[in-house]
Amino acid sequence: MLVVQRKGYLMIHSTAIVSSKATIGNNVSIGPFSIIHDNVNIGDNTEIGSHCELGIYTKLAKEQQLIIGNDSIIRSHSVFYIGSTIGNNLQTGHFISIRENSVVGEHCQVGSRSDIQGDCVIGKYTKMHSDVHIGKMSEIGNYVWLFPEVLLTNDPTPPSDTLVGVKVEDFVVIASKVLVFPGVTIKKDAVIAAGSVVKEDVDAGKVVAGNPAKKICDAKILRLHDNIRIKAYPWRNRFHRGYSENDIKQWLNEIKK
Amino acid sequence: MLVVQRKGYLMIHSTAIVSSKATIGNNVSIGPFSIIHDNVNIGDNTEIGSHCELGIYTKLAKEQQLIIGNDSIIRSHSVFYIGSTIGNNLQTGHFISIRENSVVGEHCQVGSRSDIQGDCVIGKYTKMHSDVHIGKMSEIGNYVWLFPEVLLTNDPTPPSDTLVGVKVEDFVVIASKVLVFPGVTIKKDAVIAAGSVVKEDVDAGKVVAGNPAKKICDAKILRLHDNIRIKAYPWRNRFHRGYSENDIKQWLNEIKK
Amino acid sequence: MLVVQRKGYLMIHSTAIVSSKATIGNNVSIGPFSIIHDNVNIGDNTEIGSHCELGIYTKLAKEQQLIIGNDSIIRSHSVFYIGSTIGNNLQTGHFISIRENSVVGEHCQVGSRSDIQGDCVIGKYTKMHSDVHIGKMSEIGNYVWLFPEVLLTNDPTPPSDTLVGVKVEDFVVIASKVLVFPGVTIKKDAVIAAGSVVKEDVDAGKVVAGNPAKKICDAKILRLHDNIRIKAYPWRNRFHRGYSENDIKQWLNEIKK
Repeated sequence: MLVVQRKGYLMIHSTAIVSSKATIGNNVSIGPFSIIHDNVNIGDNTEIGSHCELGIYTKLAKEQQLIIGNDSIIRSHSVFYIGSTIGNNLQTGHFISIRENSVVGEHCQVGSRSDIQGDCVIGKYTKMHSDVHIGKMSEIGNYVWLFPEVLLTNDPTPPSDTLVGVKVEDFVVIASKVLVFPGVTIKKDAVIAAGSVVKEDVDAGKVVAGNPAKKICDAKILRLHDNIRIKAYPWRNRFHRGYSENDIKQWLNEIKK
Repeated sequence: MLVVQRKGYLMIHSTAIVSSKATIGNNVSIGPFSIIHDNVNIGDNTEIGSHCELGIYTKLAKEQQLIIGNDSIIRSHSVFYIGSTIGNNLQTGHFISIRENSVVGEHCQVGSRSDIQGDCVIGKYTKMHSDVHIGKMSEIGNYVWLFPEVLLTNDPTPPSDTLVGVKVEDFVVIASKVLVFPGVTIKKDAVIAAGSVVKEDVDAGKVVAGNPAKKICDAKILRLHDNIRIKAYPWRNRFHRGYSENDIKQWLNEIKK
Repeated sequence: MLVVQRKGYLMIHSTAIVSSKATIGNNVSIGPFSIIHDNVNIGDNTEIGSHCELGIYTKLAKEQQLIIGNDSIIRSHSVFYIGSTIGNNLQTGHFISIRENSVVGEHCQVGSRSDIQGDCVIGKYTKMHSDVHIGKMSEIGNYVWLFPEVLLTNDPTPPSDTLVGVKVEDFVVIASKVLVFPGVTIKKDAVIAAGSVVKEDVDAGKVVAGNPAKKICDAKILRLHDNIRIKAYPWRNRFHRGYSENDIKQWLNEIKK
């Protein structure tokens, strides 16, 4: 992806401002009134909407480079700082912000107005809906779902300088308007009900709900609301839209065992 | 409103980008750095602020057209997809987004950073304050009030493809930071206290509060905080700013009965 | 700060639109695609990011002037109305909005997507993280901390025209996703736990938590999570980053007494 020279047809709007020190892949489009700063690398076939600003300088960045993968869509009015690395096939909504020193895996989604603060690690195929706030130093696994207004915090005794991020393991589902306390670990396949305030670690495969969140049941006893013959969780047994054939095959094989 | 040709004086800023396939009414103003795409119809006397983008393409749109009514104000940094129809006298804050296939009645307000997702129906004179999030497939009546950070959800077993929107009937008040679960119906004249998590249907004229929300009382027993002689609800008996004379007359007639 | 004439080198991007009736201090930078309207005064050494709009007209403004202090940083996509006065050393995130008739003291921070509504008074060195919503008529003291998604409300019987703002006294800490009811006073040195819904006044130096928030303990019995020898509160005894030497000296002297 690190195209050193610009090649091919660049669909860059005449009002966009693109640094000569940015590296732009093949077949990239950049919308009107967008700004691409120095040391931004944009992969092939990526679309950047209007009114974006990519590669904003901060002295907090460990590397003065922003890498955006191939085949990505960054929607309008979005802001990326220098210093992060984003995998291929990113899809964002509008008005999002991603700060420095974060690593985001391939095929992630970041909904409108969502915010990934600095020093976060986010796995592949993790989907953040609108208004999700990922506090500094969060660690999020693969295939995680974060619904609107989920907030991951990081300061146990605010204000302080000793931040402790939240950890969210693979396949976890955190429903809307959930608050997670600093340092909490939410284990594989757990499901956090909407509106919960999670103050303690959540065991793998469990459902928690409430303020403060309490264990309700095993996730695997829940059924789909519109078909009680189908177990709702683990969701990867029944929901496959947008995942790779290899992933789906593996998930189906796991069920058989 | 469907002015086929442009006429009169257009106050369109020289930096705005307006498609020749858009239809712009009389006396429309469009702010600096705004973008109007193909097949956007903007009614007479409507003001569009700076840094907006109207008519963003999505293949999800059932009709490749965006209709904005007359006498509307759309404030800066707002984003509208193609495929929705908005009545006259819309007022928005800044940074709002409205997606495809939604129908919004006349005289609605959409506060800053609010988001109307796809496939929603919203009646007339419904007022959404800041940071209101209307999930896909919501149905909202007329004269409804949604205060800051209200979130209407739609997926009973996330993630899934079988969304069930929230229904909010006429005159309902949903106070700040309320979360409403998928498929819930909130009936006419109900009042939802701030900070509630609403998991079940709410009967007409009732007040609910808490997480999970429980019935507290009939709304009609509540009094204004600064004048206990005046019943606070139904609010239309006492609060008339911004409504039509006809509506107000009808509301006052209802009291007499 | 009220530089009547422009002097010195102005780092104003060629695409920025700056009114000839604005007053721009020395060494001010204004990013691409930003707009500065009439009667905006910007102090020396202040940086304005891209895609901002400062000085938006509203008839609600008591004075048709917007004053931004010296040495401030206003990040991209931010919106300020005419009619407010902001002290020196303001720092904002992206996508913020500040409305009319508000007074903000020096050295304040306003995080991304935060919103200061009209008619607010905010003291000096008060720090609002991301997505903080300060309702109309709020009064906030000095050295206050407001963490992400704090919402200060103002209408006891919505909808109404008789708003009653929240009061937050000096040194208070309000953690993430807290909702404060209209007219509540939170007294000096109080600490509001994350996820609380505060319906009643909070006494000085107390910790409250829950929905509805209940008194938990004195703040001064809490210890730092990573060093139980150090009292976490009052935080000014231990956390000094970003404060003036005079303030720190005074705080340390108070401890000795």
